[in-house]
Amino acid sequence: MRAWRSVRCPARSLRQSARYASNAAQSGRSGIAAILGREEPVDNAQVTGWVRSVRKQKKIAFAALGDGSTLDSLQAVLKPEQAEHLSTGTAVKLQGAWVKSHGSKQSHELQVSSVSVLGENDAENNPIQPKYQTPDFLRTVPHLRSRIPNNAILLQLRSRVIASLTRFFSDQGFVQTHTPIITSSDCEGAGEVFTISSNASKDATQKAKPEGEAKVEHFFREPKYLTVSAQLHLEALAQAVDKVWTLSPTFRAEKSDTPRHLSEFYMLEAEQCFVDDANQIMDLIENMLRYVATDTLDSKLYRELLQSRGTAAADEGDSHVDSASLDKRWKGLRASYWPRITYDSAMHLLTTAQEEEQVRFEHAPSYTEGLAAEHERYIASTVGNGSPVFVTDYPAEQKPFYMSPSATGSSTVACFDLLVPDLCELVGGSMREHRSKELLETMNAKGVAGLEWYQDLRKYGSVPHGGFGLGFDRLLCYLSGVANLRDVVAFPRWYGRCDC
Amino acid sequence: MRAWRSVRCPARSLRQSARYASNAAQSGRSGIAAILGREEPVDNAQVTGWVRSVRKQKKIAFAALGDGSTLDSLQAVLKPEQAEHLSTGTAVKLQGAWVKSHGSKQSHELQVSSVSVLGENDAENNPIQPKYQTPDFLRTVPHLRSRIPNNAILLQLRSRVIASLTRFFSDQGFVQTHTPIITSSDCEGAGEVFTISSNASKDATQKAKPEGEAKVEHFFREPKYLTVSAQLHLEALAQAVDKVWTLSPTFRAEKSDTPRHLSEFYMLEAEQCFVDDANQIMDLIENMLRYVATDTLDSKLYRELLQSRGTAAADEGDSHVDSASLDKRWKGLRASYWPRITYDSAMHLLTTAQEEEQVRFEHAPSYTEGLAAEHERYIASTVGNGSPVFVTDYPAEQKPFYMSPSATGSSTVACFDLLVPDLCELVGGSMREHRSKELLETMNAKGVAGLEWYQDLRKYGSVPHGGFGLGFDRLLCYLSGVANLRDVVAFPRWYGRCDC
Repeated sequence: MRAWRSVRCPARSLRQSARYASNAAQSGRSGIAAILGREEPVDNAQVTGWVRSVRKQKKIAFAALGDGSTLDSLQAVLKPEQAEHLSTGTAVKLQGAWVKSHGSKQSHELQVSSVSVLGENDAENNPIQPKYQTPDFLRTVPHLRSRIPNNAILLQLRSRVIASLTRFFSDQGFVQTHTPIITSSDCEGAGEVFTISSNASKDATQKAKPEGEAKVEHFFREPKYLTVSAQLHLEALAQAVDKVWTLSPTFRAEKSDTPRHLSEFYMLEAEQCFVDDANQIMDLIENMLRYVATDTLDSKLYRELLQSRGTAAADEGDSHVDSASLDKRWKGLRASYWPRITYDSAMHLLTTAQEEEQVRFEHAPSYTEGLAAEHERYIASTVGNGSPVFVTDYPAEQKPFYMSPSATGSSTVACFDLLVPDLCELVGGSMREHRSKELLETMNAKGVAGLEWYQDLRKYGSVPHGGFGLGFDRLLCYLSGVANLRDVVAFPRWYGRCDC
Repeated sequence: MRAWRSVRCPARSLRQSARYASNAAQSGRSGIAAILGREEPVDNAQVTGWVRSVRKQKKIAFAALGDGSTLDSLQAVLKPEQAEHLSTGTAVKLQGAWVKSHGSKQSHELQVSSVSVLGENDAENNPIQPKYQTPDFLRTVPHLRSRIPNNAILLQLRSRVIASLTRFFSDQGFVQTHTPIITSSDCEGAGEVFTISSNASKDATQKAKPEGEAKVEHFFREPKYLTVSAQLHLEALAQAVDKVWTLSPTFRAEKSDTPRHLSEFYMLEAEQCFVDDANQIMDLIENMLRYVATDTLDSKLYRELLQSRGTAAADEGDSHVDSASLDKRWKGLRASYWPRITYDSAMHLLTTAQEEEQVRFEHAPSYTEGLAAEHERYIASTVGNGSPVFVTDYPAEQKPFYMSPSATGSSTVACFDLLVPDLCELVGGSMREHRSKELLETMNAKGVAGLEWYQDLRKYGSVPHGGFGLGFDRLLCYLSGVANLRDVVAFPRWYGRCDC
């Protein structure tokens, strides 16, 4: 009985409750999720949450209660007068007896002795209604849509994956770092960037006079941008502590309006020194994703993720992932072997498949033009057999300046993309050019100017190293079966849209 | 012997090495830190790292090797010809025998059989020299300064504290979230904000014509800003899953040039629903910081932090924290009781102290003018006896619109600041006004416009809740004894300065 009350503890007793909460956490969940796991009856239980639905009959009323910790609801049995002020969405505190249920839909129920309504709830005018609403509409109310149980599960998933990754990297001796958001560098030399200015300097910028050279006062003396990648800064920090990682916001000002692009997204990036070969970085990625999958596969959260696919947006259409397909993705991440094929082999495979009419591509595969999405999809689905596939050693001209040449030849670079079924590119990485002269030559050849500080890293204590970047929100799409990045990010930002 | 080699594993054997690395991690460290803990001799050991110093004699040479995992160096004993190409900073791979040392400075040493120099190192022109260099100078080379052992320890500390916090919140059933960086809200209604624009819209902005209404094209349709706090968005997500937290970059475009302010910094913020009383939030903070301190106090990292104080910047002057003072800070965080006094009592205490001439303040304490830094310092040092102190229930007019009235009266709000010795304010928090009408009234009274989405949270399923924000970089200053925020952040940004 005490363990329950501790879910909501009175002031000054959190120390005690921390112990209980920790017990609950061992089963992976807290709140109503933890309560629903209780088999033994509890005389004087206390539960808090939001009413998901309420059903009033003449002599009895039923309320389903949730708090985002589980898809399941707790069934509360009330007298009709106790349910008088309850409507969908109301926050309540209920006290009563936790007993075996007479109903067939749940094993236990709460026979309520007292009800406290905790705050206002205008159920009628709530934009979120207990019926099917399109993802497009829900994106207009990001401040409310996370309350839908399927969306709350996505918040739980993000949290759990972050915790897994933090443990994985810590066990592996990687140092988690905070790389800067405001920066001078445009890592890829591609993609539009966001420029920042301060209130103080805005006036000067906007009143630039056409008749003369307006002196623009910049907060940081010169224009600065929102980071497009933490990589270059991570490389600097790797030379201090050998192995580093970060999970950091990243920005692109591209006017893309697709389910696969956001203006603001999270990237997981890592760099490791004293690495001889891109295979070591690929090993790291395999181990990392296998760890994350293994860590969650046996959990209630995982079973609920599968379950949520049943009620997921019907209008996902062709991109809808059912629970069997989702299960296959997770099992694929646990596969002990992920194929690694070179770009060259991939091209050969695509050309052969096209010639033998196993597939008809919209664009014929071309070595110089690179892999199109349809090609990546074909490789991911045919080579991997459910597991992800590494494509390695791309032509140098398709890749940024900082990559090392492949061991086997100088026209390709020691890099890889990780392709997963349906979603295609999830991770990109490479060995980094650690030789001063060669780096400068490639920068010149590719027209990358400046970055003297980055060149410094090759002059003083340079060392072979490599790393990768993983689109974290894409990973969550892959793990949840949600088709659109805008629906795994709580407050998504894309071209023309930045609600709340 | 194998365990060692595994520190640098050959390609495709990471699975095996992961096991070893994990063993190393159980002792809390990897790399050279793990190797230095080995008592038994190893015949054919392999070590990688950077040369910290090299000493060449006629018949023998010594190199001290580090990799950022520890302040200590590994002593390598070489033949003079093996040391020929070694200089301070060189990245090397050494093979040899790990044996008990003849020297008195270390228990073991590596008798080197083979040396590989891994990359370039222009020791002479390296801006980082193996001698005392001022913090001011080092801030001009942020891409290199983390290599100084005392700075590498700060990277290790940040990583360890993040991992502790992640575990703490996960155990407590809190959901870690990613709140948006680009936002419309200016949470506090105070402080300068950074405005963002895209390359695409920049031209339009700069060419605003004086003769007519220039149409400025905004990437997001209207001007957007870099977030000054995650709080409002966290409040929305708390209503979906009850308890949420985030560790997120935060921005202020203030032209402050002090050791206590940065333009870009990390805030740890949390919100919890179904809370009756600010004391529950204060309990949470106590438990959290006590957990972090306890988690690290017995570690080698902690002993090295104390050790680093001995060689820390001599020019920290009055603000220098020696190892005894630092130890006192950590022990204070473990204290079982942290005093909580009201603003009213604090004022009384200050006035009495001044009247009784126990202290002479530059500014006399005044109820309406609030606590100045000197007052906070006095309270922190006299009330807490080494532990942090909560000051609660400030006058409403000193605080933002979103705070609830105190239970005891409506002229104060149910809030608190956590003051720590030397550093003053580390955390601020409160109960949030969860009643729709009262929130709107306060917003109007304080001149806060808009935020309709935030008002929505009070209309649909509103619930009593509270939360806090902790200056994460300030916490690291407090835990490390480093006086200046610019030195615990790898790439600090402040007015006029954004290097790299």
